[in-house]
Amino acid sequence: MSIFKKHAFICSSGKTCPTQGSVEIMQEMKNMISDLGLKQQIRINKAGCMGQCGDGPIMVVYPEAVWYANVQLADVAIIVHQHLIAGEPIERLYYHPKQEK
Amino acid sequence: MSIFKKHAFICSSGKTCPTQGSVEIMQEMKNMISDLGLKQQIRINKAGCMGQCGDGPIMVVYPEAVWYANVQLADVAIIVHQHLIAGEPIERLYYHPKQEK
Repeated sequence: MSIFKKHAFICSSGKTCPTQGSVEIMQEMKNMISDLGLKQQIRINKAGCMGQCGDGPIMVVYPEAVWYANVQLADVAIIVHQHLIAGEPIERLYYHPKQEK
Repeated sequence: MSIFKKHAFICSSGKTCPTQGSVEIMQEMKNMISDLGLKQQIRINKAGCMGQCGDGPIMVVYPEAVWYANVQLADVAIIVHQHLIAGEPIERLYYHPKQEK
């Protein structure tokens, strides 16, 4: 029942990520997907706090459950092209939780 | 790199879902998971519009990408116990998009 091939959620209303630039990053990623005409297949979504505060901006891409931490504006293009379009996650941006959950 | 066994997103800041009770449903589901002591494994998350307006409250559960439409407060317990905990999605609540995306 997959509606989107890739569904990315970016914390944009939590307490810390928005102070680290997450809203701008989400908007830039959203614009890029829109400009590429991929809105029906790839959804960039606002999300509330995802419980990983301090390592933001945090995002997660489903259905593969790939988490990225400290995402910067300069990372948006590679995430879009290499991961969301080409399907190859970016290892150097992986989120490494401080403790096993 | 899965952080949560189940990660549910409920549209709670879009234009229509909140007028259909989505915020109350999200809060009730969040409270139930918290009361059950399952916050580390199961995350109930606020989300912005997921592009399926009119069939709300809309929610999606990842990593399995199961979408539910018209979720009601009375459905919260079965979603939590049968799907999020026991792993069996609730077919009668499935979202059926009006057109193939």
